[in-house]
Amino acid sequence: MLLRNCWYVAAWSSEVTSDAGGGLLARTIVNLPVVLWRDAAGSVIAFEDRCCHRGAPLSRGRKEGDRLRCMYHGLLFDRDGRCIEIPSQDRVPPQARVRRFPVVERHNWIWLWPGNPALADESLIPDTHWLDDPGWRSLQGYTHYRTNYLLICDNLLDLAHLPYVHPTTLGGDEAYSRFPPKVERLERGVRITRWATGIKPAGFAQAIMNWPGNVDRWNIYDFLVPGIFLMDSGMQPAGTGAQAGHRLDAAEFRGCQALTPETEDSTHYFFAHPHNFALDRPEVTEAIHANVVKAFEEDSAMIHAQDAMLKLDPGFRMVPIAADAALTQYRRLVAKLAAAEAAAAAAAPAAAPAAAG
Amino acid sequence: MLLRNCWYVAAWSSEVTSDAGGGLLARTIVNLPVVLWRDAAGSVIAFEDRCCHRGAPLSRGRKEGDRLRCMYHGLLFDRDGRCIEIPSQDRVPPQARVRRFPVVERHNWIWLWPGNPALADESLIPDTHWLDDPGWRSLQGYTHYRTNYLLICDNLLDLAHLPYVHPTTLGGDEAYSRFPPKVERLERGVRITRWATGIKPAGFAQAIMNWPGNVDRWNIYDFLVPGIFLMDSGMQPAGTGAQAGHRLDAAEFRGCQALTPETEDSTHYFFAHPHNFALDRPEVTEAIHANVVKAFEEDSAMIHAQDAMLKLDPGFRMVPIAADAALTQYRRLVAKLAAAEAAAAAAAPAAAPAAAG
Amino acid sequence: MLLRNCWYVAAWSSEVTSDAGGGLLARTIVNLPVVLWRDAAGSVIAFEDRCCHRGAPLSRGRKEGDRLRCMYHGLLFDRDGRCIEIPSQDRVPPQARVRRFPVVERHNWIWLWPGNPALADESLIPDTHWLDDPGWRSLQGYTHYRTNYLLICDNLLDLAHLPYVHPTTLGGDEAYSRFPPKVERLERGVRITRWATGIKPAGFAQAIMNWPGNVDRWNIYDFLVPGIFLMDSGMQPAGTGAQAGHRLDAAEFRGCQALTPETEDSTHYFFAHPHNFALDRPEVTEAIHANVVKAFEEDSAMIHAQDAMLKLDPGFRMVPIAADAALTQYRRLVAKLAAAEAAAAAAAPAAAPAAAG
Repeated sequence: MLLRNCWYVAAWSSEVTSDAGGGLLARTIVNLPVVLWRDAAGSVIAFEDRCCHRGAPLSRGRKEGDRLRCMYHGLLFDRDGRCIEIPSQDRVPPQARVRRFPVVERHNWIWLWPGNPALADESLIPDTHWLDDPGWRSLQGYTHYRTNYLLICDNLLDLAHLPYVHPTTLGGDEAYSRFPPKVERLERGVRITRWATGIKPAGFAQAIMNWPGNVDRWNIYDFLVPGIFLMDSGMQPAGTGAQAGHRLDAAEFRGCQALTPETEDSTHYFFAHPHNFALDRPEVTEAIHANVVKAFEEDSAMIHAQDAMLKLDPGFRMVPIAADAALTQYRRLVAKLAAAEAAAAAAAPAAAPAAAG
Repeated sequence: MLLRNCWYVAAWSSEVTSDAGGGLLARTIVNLPVVLWRDAAGSVIAFEDRCCHRGAPLSRGRKEGDRLRCMYHGLLFDRDGRCIEIPSQDRVPPQARVRRFPVVERHNWIWLWPGNPALADESLIPDTHWLDDPGWRSLQGYTHYRTNYLLICDNLLDLAHLPYVHPTTLGGDEAYSRFPPKVERLERGVRITRWATGIKPAGFAQAIMNWPGNVDRWNIYDFLVPGIFLMDSGMQPAGTGAQAGHRLDAAEFRGCQALTPETEDSTHYFFAHPHNFALDRPEVTEAIHANVVKAFEEDSAMIHAQDAMLKLDPGFRMVPIAADAALTQYRRLVAKLAAAEAAAAAAAPAAAPAAAG
Repeated sequence: MLLRNCWYVAAWSSEVTSDAGGGLLARTIVNLPVVLWRDAAGSVIAFEDRCCHRGAPLSRGRKEGDRLRCMYHGLLFDRDGRCIEIPSQDRVPPQARVRRFPVVERHNWIWLWPGNPALADESLIPDTHWLDDPGWRSLQGYTHYRTNYLLICDNLLDLAHLPYVHPTTLGGDEAYSRFPPKVERLERGVRITRWATGIKPAGFAQAIMNWPGNVDRWNIYDFLVPGIFLMDSGMQPAGTGAQAGHRLDAAEFRGCQALTPETEDSTHYFFAHPHNFALDRPEVTEAIHANVVKAFEEDSAMIHAQDAMLKLDPGFRMVPIAADAALTQYRRLVAKLAAAEAAAAAAAPAAAPAAAG
């Protein structure tokens, strides 16, 4: 079961244009077909992508200022999803409306809440201001998986695969990977922390920062429901207080990644890796992005292969290892939330649709 | 459920050649694989496309005059579907036969009855003589849908989509589209009639006919079970008695369209648009045909998109509008006939196969 | 149901290389994903192609001498399938192991037993020494079907199709095909024997052998469970005692074919046609192989077409003919063995997995 009462990243802001003649983005999110568009003021609107009349996709429709017209039979909807015109008839019945989803546009990401709108608390959206903060640089990434999103969550919550899947991209530093990670439970996620003090800087960073000696190095990952991965990672000269919270002369990354299930069996993957150094050197930003893209291709090949093997035998029992601690905790949290949603839906099955729109 | 006790258009006559070396057309009709061929006299024969021995398709076989040989193991069938030769054995068991379907070839269409042959009344085949009448001209059209045929029926029974889906092909004439259509129930279908009197002629027709003033204009559609669409449409000088039945100096079309379900989820679509003017100008015939083909591509894009949306949510409830009157009546008629067929099949499950062949 | 307690041909020996950097062949056999590799001594090892940890395919792993490492999280397995190293933890739990299948490499074929290893009796592997005997020549063939293997068994057990499917490749000799075949039941298969005495030699053989007169000609096919087809076929001068077992101046073939179900709906097909004449003329070997490949393409087209027709109607009842005797016997034998396996599995459901590895 896919969680519904969550904020999901639905798109990069740049994917939903203000183009008057087009500007309709069709995207399926947790099995729901959605059309994203901007009203005359530029605010993002998200409708179910299915006209209430005969089910034609509104993403084949036409924007008319603050309104959207279905181009099968001409029904016209206002920005709340209410039908306000049906050609060749005077009265518009009140049930003629399409579902509108809560959306929030923030720091270049468009967040969408596919569940009960009454629960759509904006304070649940995590901070990703590094995506548009002028003190940071990154490129916008997107990739697509033909697997359930939890296999990708597993991968992101697991440091053990780094030296095997990513020997030349992310996992090459054996000295660093010897420092054991700490796993903590968060209210809506898991935190993995690894500190390494007084080690040689990574070659890539050293080439830019030219530190005189060893560094302290950290990776602090917050992995939050539904599949938001926020990374605080970096290094700075050893003994200058990084672990106590003093960031001085540090080369830092603030990776922002979001997994959004398209269906039970496919996933949208939005990502960027803002860094706070070499801001005037676009080739550095491009090299960082390219390295991440290459590593993601390595993961994608393995995860799709794993998925194919798992599908051949739905009864396959996994043998857990010590490195699975974080992913096991995270899967338990997701299962608990899914069970709570299922129980709530069973108690009041019509509540969510009635409140929607 | 697809209706079986109906005449369906199975092919254009020209698709089943008299070619001695080939001439075997394989086509699936209401889930039944059929092979169509011509005997020595040129009469069309339709067999189930599956040898009674091991199920090999007879469309991979060989015509031998009035007989058809399966080219897997050599069984030979006469034109009634009876096996008359089994290589390397003397006796042919009586159950060695393939089902033969009633077929009627008329006006360039081959009609096939997939249901109980005892009910195959030829008088149920509607008149389409415009397809080969020397007083009319048309080109032969075919297209294929990957959707259930009823979504296409809906589209053909609905004039409301014309200005939105076909702004430049069929739906451009707003003055005309303001005249309300009348919907009548027929015994095996629905009739939609629209008359507009004393309006400007359509540009295309006027360029050819060069009438001195306004015209009376009509569209009379008969939509018949299982999915036969017959259109009487045209215009002639205003006040010359068209509505009373006097056709004088008229530019007329007699559109003939036939939807034949291939499976529950795919449809054959045969069409032509005979016209009775400019008979000596093939470029006019070609332009009329090209316009129809373009409009059908517009419909196809929308209907396939609609179908994809409906498949995502089998529980989707449509909100009806006034313009749905004709399609709603037609769907009720189809449901009634399907229920009657299901009841008859339940009462005598073996009757249809026993009577077949 | 696919038989499990059988030796199946899994690969040609040449498909599993000793290449240290690669040499991992992934192949699905009776629905089981298998990885085939060679240990340091060159012996073939077959593991289930699914790491016991998270199900990643071991065929994406790395050979390390006698060991195989999963390249997702680095688990290392010895040649028995026991995990002997889990990175970043000291203890390896005993259930950390992958299933190892019995394999036997013999005469260029690698045989694999997917069922209960306690029953893997090597004496059940039929003799195919012609595949690497210096007195015989052949080329190695492989093809793939997207159908259940029994439709191919039917085809191989049926001489009736030869003149229709293979008029120019295998079935052209009408004088020979008039001699009736004899069908005998074997303990694990069926034998079909056809002797023709004192007939003209086949043109192809005569061009090479240049016999002075007529020949005696034979085809003796053993078709063995699960789908092993062994052909003793040839001709020699008439009256020189061939039928009594004296092979003198004979042109002989020893066709070796093996069908291995990949899934219920797809099949691996390994084949070769060793001959004992013209050993120093590679163009003869190539021509024989090419003729077989062409005939197999004829079969493949027909069997895939037959399969498509059968899938359209799972309730289709075949009408048997006299020529079906051998295939009917063989299908009965397979059904009997499958029922026995199902009964054994029901009696001791956990026995096979427990005994595996």
